[in-house]
Amino acid sequence: QEVKKHGKGAERMWVTYKMGVYDITDFVESHPGGDKILMAAGGAVDPFWALYAQHKTEDVMEILEGMRVGSLDPTEPAPVHAVDASDPFSTDPPRHPALIVNNPKPFNAETPPSLMMDNFRTPNDLFFVRNHLPVPQTDLASHRVRIEGLGKGRKDIELSVDELKKRYKEHYVTSVVQCGGNRRADMQKYKKVAGLMWEGYAISNAKWTGVRLRDVLIDLGVDPNDETIKHVHLEGADVDPTGKPYGASIPFEKAMSPEVLIAYSMNDEPIPSDHGFPLRCIVPGVVGARQVKWLTLVRLSDVESPSHFQQKDYRAFSPSVQHGDELDWNSVPSIQDYPIQSAFCLPATGTTVDREDGTVDVAGYAWSGGGRGIIRVEVSPDGGKTWYSAEMEQDPDQNQDKMWAWTLFRASIPIPPGVDKMDMVVKATDRSYNTQPETAAGIWNIRGLLHNAWHHVEVKIRD
Amino acid sequence: QEVKKHGKGAERMWVTYKMGVYDITDFVESHPGGDKILMAAGGAVDPFWALYAQHKTEDVMEILEGMRVGSLDPTEPAPVHAVDASDPFSTDPPRHPALIVNNPKPFNAETPPSLMMDNFRTPNDLFFVRNHLPVPQTDLASHRVRIEGLGKGRKDIELSVDELKKRYKEHYVTSVVQCGGNRRADMQKYKKVAGLMWEGYAISNAKWTGVRLRDVLIDLGVDPNDETIKHVHLEGADVDPTGKPYGASIPFEKAMSPEVLIAYSMNDEPIPSDHGFPLRCIVPGVVGARQVKWLTLVRLSDVESPSHFQQKDYRAFSPSVQHGDELDWNSVPSIQDYPIQSAFCLPATGTTVDREDGTVDVAGYAWSGGGRGIIRVEVSPDGGKTWYSAEMEQDPDQNQDKMWAWTLFRASIPIPPGVDKMDMVVKATDRSYNTQPETAAGIWNIRGLLHNAWHHVEVKIRD
Repeated sequence: QEVKKHGKGAERMWVTYKMGVYDITDFVESHPGGDKILMAAGGAVDPFWALYAQHKTEDVMEILEGMRVGSLDPTEPAPVHAVDASDPFSTDPPRHPALIVNNPKPFNAETPPSLMMDNFRTPNDLFFVRNHLPVPQTDLASHRVRIEGLGKGRKDIELSVDELKKRYKEHYVTSVVQCGGNRRADMQKYKKVAGLMWEGYAISNAKWTGVRLRDVLIDLGVDPNDETIKHVHLEGADVDPTGKPYGASIPFEKAMSPEVLIAYSMNDEPIPSDHGFPLRCIVPGVVGARQVKWLTLVRLSDVESPSHFQQKDYRAFSPSVQHGDELDWNSVPSIQDYPIQSAFCLPATGTTVDREDGTVDVAGYAWSGGGRGIIRVEVSPDGGKTWYSAEMEQDPDQNQDKMWAWTLFRASIPIPPGVDKMDMVVKATDRSYNTQPETAAGIWNIRGLLHNAWHHVEVKIRD
Repeated sequence: QEVKKHGKGAERMWVTYKMGVYDITDFVESHPGGDKILMAAGGAVDPFWALYAQHKTEDVMEILEGMRVGSLDPTEPAPVHAVDASDPFSTDPPRHPALIVNNPKPFNAETPPSLMMDNFRTPNDLFFVRNHLPVPQTDLASHRVRIEGLGKGRKDIELSVDELKKRYKEHYVTSVVQCGGNRRADMQKYKKVAGLMWEGYAISNAKWTGVRLRDVLIDLGVDPNDETIKHVHLEGADVDPTGKPYGASIPFEKAMSPEVLIAYSMNDEPIPSDHGFPLRCIVPGVVGARQVKWLTLVRLSDVESPSHFQQKDYRAFSPSVQHGDELDWNSVPSIQDYPIQSAFCLPATGTTVDREDGTVDVAGYAWSGGGRGIIRVEVSPDGGKTWYSAEMEQDPDQNQDKMWAWTLFRASIPIPPGVDKMDMVVKATDRSYNTQPETAAGIWNIRGLLHNAWHHVEVKIRD
């Protein structure tokens, strides 16, 4: 309780590590990434250090002990995560304190942009979370995925995680999940939209390991060229108050592509509760809403999933459809492949930079759907008049025609002489030479989906 | 010679049909599409009427005879298409007079936009022509396509058109060919670029019939999953003065896709000389430069084609690469899939419309590469502030995930009160929700390739 009073902005800032309490106030100024340690001020530094192995050395421990101001009281009870039977969200798992919470119930949170560039594969604890419903209580041993609609004379089948692992070859893919509403807050600056106000970090990149949906279906007798099968429905264990599960569908041809997995591992660990334990369908190149978590059902069909989330959401209307208009959901197709996207993670808008630094260091991510690799990322110091090419970090195992992972970019942009602020812009180009629109004028839609206009960050220049 | 004096703009305008000479001056005003018949003024109407079967009726002939003013002199020799051995272009075929010639040698011409909307499949005579070299003199009986690089122990093979037809199943695809430089003239309005100044009609759509490249290669022993084959080189019979043929390549995976054809028919006729007689490789969804005409060679390889046209052209640089910079061709990938595109065909810029008409009728095309279907086309009367959805005409046999044909759009845009001109804009959205950039600012490139910013047409409103 005492520690909590010494949070970010307090006169003296404390953190705890195990049972020790440390005053980091004087240290922050000199620490590389001092702003990051401030995220832990007033609480435990342990979950942050878990992300950075370089802290677990004797030298670091010695420095830390030099800042010690006391110890936690072992008799003070740890805060209890109470289960409240009247609150369906009370069994949700604990989360990393650095996540930027957009909505607590259902839990929706962005990766903190300041930590996003530290890892090509987003650590599981920092992977953005987009839940539509309470996290279901699943069990590794008893969980089953049911396969339906296999065709005449073929019975439905239920497979456990163990059976999937035993029967099919293991594959992995490093692949992005991005929410259809990512950067909605940015689109709202153009004109009001409805939905969770994601800033631009409802996107993460992980290594997913599992079995190919294709291998499972072919083994169960499905012909990859069967033209009567058009869509594959997916359902999760998460249910709404009426008992209806979350559902979505993907085109059959995509479902039969080698990159689509029934995954059981995320970054070489069992998939965490928030991300679909024990099974998630990973559909690289496609919007997150189709990558169904807590997977319980795969159904072959000649039509799209009738689920609300397939039929009445995740479709981007024309800018001509205004608030108050009746929404003709059938007039627009369900979102599958994502269009090209990029955004800055660093610096934050409003940051002040010294003119004598000469340059502004910028960094962020770029990604496009459908496996279309990023062929360049360009940044502008002046609102788009001039452009510089950024350095790109990509998955060396993926090529430009099958790039499921994101591209991280970094650049040092020269500070033009005489300016007191810079309107920095980023835009990317994909393998099909698709680019991002300059503004939301042509893509604004009432639900604020798929905002991918040029991302701007303004910094101040100090003499 | 007398007829030639009565061309467009003359006091009395004449056309010929077979041996008859007709004065169409009074007729033009009342004829639907009177502006189109003017294209024939001072010459033969025959090639135009060949495009419109509805003219070949007794009624029309009767109307025509009423306008007869004389007959051609049968003793006057027809103009001779002289073959000049010193001019490699002198054996080029005759062309339809309506084509808008951009460059005579090598021949490059756009489809006239005023005729573009009359047919979903562009008539062969009006299909845009993009030749890099003189049209080669090919012969149906002796033409061969050679297949090389089939792998260890497999000999190269040469196939005639007859052998292709006999050995493999016939398939067809309705598919667009678009020049990588289409709309370059429009990009030049933003900033100077280098290349042929295509306005926006270096794009056409035809039905192509032939055999699947996939079927040929599999029959010759190629494994579709062979990971050592990365690219398929294509060469044509057209050669430069040093004897080097036109060449290009496409990724092996694309080459093995069912839509890729070795075509011998275009709109159910033998492919005309200008378009690749007798064989053209049709690669739906990909830039025209890879759809090699007069096909003589298919070569499997682990690298891209070394051809100039693959390595040193048809790559779009960043806007940061300026005139005078050394071009690092290896820094940008060769163009394959085309990004999303749309443009008006009607009305022409500068057209005057009566306010009392209430609306302006607009029409044009939209298309995207990679088989990504057009999901909507929107038009704006006011530079992009407000949008209306246009009606779309699409190939009923193609779906949004495999749409190789174009989309023709039509809309009647209300004339806003009080305006004396309208800045009309069109933009399209494809199945991956990719859209067009608003201006050339982010896509301008020194070679003026892949211009797909919003297309504007300005009309005047007359009270």
